[in-house]
Amino acid sequence: MTNPPFSQELDGCHAARIGARGLDPAIFAATLERTRPALEALGRHHDRATLPLLHMAGKRDDLAIVTDTAARLAAFPHVVFLGTGGSSLGGRTLAALADGGWASAAEPVKRPRLWFLENVDPDGFARVVDHLPLDRVALAIVSKSGGTAETLAGALALLPRIEKEVGRAELPRRVVVVTEPADNPLRRLAQRWGIPVVDHPDVGGRYSVLSATGMLPALCAGVDGEAVRDGAGIALADALAGDPARSPAAQGAALQVALAETRGITQSVMLTYIDRLACFGLWYCQLWAESLGKQGKGTTPIRALGTVDQHSQLQLYLAGPADKLVTVVMGAPAGQGVRYPRELGDPALAWLGGRTMGDLLDVSQRATAETLIRNGRPTRILRVPRLDERALGALLMHFMLETIIAGHLLGVDPFDQPAVEEGKRLARDYLAEIPAR
Amino acid sequence: MTNPPFSQELDGCHAARIGARGLDPAIFAATLERTRPALEALGRHHDRATLPLLHMAGKRDDLAIVTDTAARLAAFPHVVFLGTGGSSLGGRTLAALADGGWASAAEPVKRPRLWFLENVDPDGFARVVDHLPLDRVALAIVSKSGGTAETLAGALALLPRIEKEVGRAELPRRVVVVTEPADNPLRRLAQRWGIPVVDHPDVGGRYSVLSATGMLPALCAGVDGEAVRDGAGIALADALAGDPARSPAAQGAALQVALAETRGITQSVMLTYIDRLACFGLWYCQLWAESLGKQGKGTTPIRALGTVDQHSQLQLYLAGPADKLVTVVMGAPAGQGVRYPRELGDPALAWLGGRTMGDLLDVSQRATAETLIRNGRPTRILRVPRLDERALGALLMHFMLETIIAGHLLGVDPFDQPAVEEGKRLARDYLAEIPAR
Repeated sequence: MTNPPFSQELDGCHAARIGARGLDPAIFAATLERTRPALEALGRHHDRATLPLLHMAGKRDDLAIVTDTAARLAAFPHVVFLGTGGSSLGGRTLAALADGGWASAAEPVKRPRLWFLENVDPDGFARVVDHLPLDRVALAIVSKSGGTAETLAGALALLPRIEKEVGRAELPRRVVVVTEPADNPLRRLAQRWGIPVVDHPDVGGRYSVLSATGMLPALCAGVDGEAVRDGAGIALADALAGDPARSPAAQGAALQVALAETRGITQSVMLTYIDRLACFGLWYCQLWAESLGKQGKGTTPIRALGTVDQHSQLQLYLAGPADKLVTVVMGAPAGQGVRYPRELGDPALAWLGGRTMGDLLDVSQRATAETLIRNGRPTRILRVPRLDERALGALLMHFMLETIIAGHLLGVDPFDQPAVEEGKRLARDYLAEIPAR
Repeated sequence: MTNPPFSQELDGCHAARIGARGLDPAIFAATLERTRPALEALGRHHDRATLPLLHMAGKRDDLAIVTDTAARLAAFPHVVFLGTGGSSLGGRTLAALADGGWASAAEPVKRPRLWFLENVDPDGFARVVDHLPLDRVALAIVSKSGGTAETLAGALALLPRIEKEVGRAELPRRVVVVTEPADNPLRRLAQRWGIPVVDHPDVGGRYSVLSATGMLPALCAGVDGEAVRDGAGIALADALAGDPARSPAAQGAALQVALAETRGITQSVMLTYIDRLACFGLWYCQLWAESLGKQGKGTTPIRALGTVDQHSQLQLYLAGPADKLVTVVMGAPAGQGVRYPRELGDPALAWLGGRTMGDLLDVSQRATAETLIRNGRPTRILRVPRLDERALGALLMHFMLETIIAGHLLGVDPFDQPAVEEGKRLARDYLAEIPAR
């Protein structure tokens, strides 16, 4: 391939570069070799179509309904997404590519404003919902299981208010539900309210970013969904080739597991500098934590943001316990943005004169990575020459594969999340103790 | 005191409650006793006025200029804050108390919209600045040292554009600089542009939330600054009494250090459920990481948000490595928000019928804490009966004191951040390699 969407550099994790805290080459090679069965399993799943996630990259036939639905919703100036965890973080990550995430708030409405309501704080909910023009709001209600308490509670709070503004007959045009095909409370709710349903495919929430769940917000924001999947396909092809030495995902998994097993690394920091990737780190944190955090295993994913966390977390990363792998995702902002005059009226500002704001961001990310390396901290660099749909799709697939392969190495099932059921049951029990009024 | 702003419960951290992963009572008692010298040192600093932070709670004479400045800025519909790390996170945390943080975006403009620009991504910067009405924008430029690269770069990008809209003569009315009294690049920039300067007191950035640095955004958002300081004073008084057994901050510090020293706890999770506290966790992360992460010591602070992280991180917290202390900050949302009809048209929704959205949030936070405890994970609960200025001020002072006392226990200086200078120098070196144009 002449133009890879990103490149992965592991030099800053090896003993040759960072000394005793770095990976021993023999150990890394042995761990990489241990990824071979995982790559073979992925290949079998792909060939036999037994892991739907692996077919999301190449799939196109499902996009028609998502495209139609997105066009329907995006005709309104505001689109509210009710969903949490895997039903929000992937969509937020993709949508931010077009709308910049938080920063979009100042932009004029060319596209609709997207609102992701993930929590059930009555105050925060009211701060959004009480001030939106509910006669000009579209709504997507997303829950794979159809039983997510927060999502159902949000829907039951919002639907009557929208109905009151526009009438029941209008709802099918303004509201959509995304849930799995099986009968469930959300699907029945959709039936009662006459709301169309888009099927959530059989991929777990944290692996659903390429499906309708992630694509619906993405397309509402103006992201090119096919290009996202094209990019994902590039990363997938590298893994399906079956050679660990040529699979960035296998190398990443071997890196993380070998550092955890032999160098006391308990935390995996995802440090991004580009504002449009701010949500990507949250998506990664769910993927990594929920897939691997079981049987006492797994490492803790941490989202960090350049440059603000240089002024917040970097001291700890450099001089605290040597228990972190830092992955620095480097966009290519050099030369972009305002160019400062050569003469800034103060010799103490000469460093900025004649350079651009993007130059400052670029040297900041490079300097942070290099400083981590000089301090002997394992540091992986992902260079993204151009952050577009193709690159983001490739990054997303890369980390889904890296996580699955790491699950194989750790001997855990990367697709379940058994521990969280207890808390859900307990919450229902507590609710039952509150007298209904 | 009859009505404490919050209460701290450590039961869920003790072996009696959670078994072998919990604290041994003798070890906790011994560690608590080790906080006595730290409390005595705080008392001496207070009596001799040698630690300005300790006088911020009782200070009032500095608020006049902050109040005047905030009134001046808040007369405009948008106020942009340029600052990063300690010059943004405290102010964001306080302002969110009034404006709800992100959620405020839908609210009509009674108060100005506050924009915190912490990064130098040209894309993100433009997404805000290019779409704000620059003839109706006020600007605060905040850097304690006056040398923060991102803040200076933002100011040099934005000031000429505002000047172009409103003229140089208008700038003193619309712009303010907050920086330390000593000569520095930002102070000289203020002089060249005719911008008034508010002095940043002699407290480090991460301890500056109660100073003008934090108060200016707070007052712009409509927060009662005196009440914040009153609350801080309550938490301070508990520590200055000198008795570890009656100081929540000493107990918190002993808890964190004893768990790290004897139970392999390497991560300190701050889990909040109230939207208005979403930024509080970011503030805490800087405070804890930068104060203690040195000489190979410290633990990693992690910000988690309920309920979304129940669907993202909780699996790891419950079933991954037992290396976390989770502090759950519980607001009191029960009974608040929409009350659902008793009959919701589906037996599967009966759990919600007749309850409120706030009930759901309340049982979620209680269930998460209880589930962590049942899984033997050290869990501290902070109950906040009423999240107002007084309570937030008390929480902020509590954690500043807990951090300082933990620094004493660990034998590190909680007020310096020596490791980050190398990266700053390296960034300047890299910038110097880029030809000025």
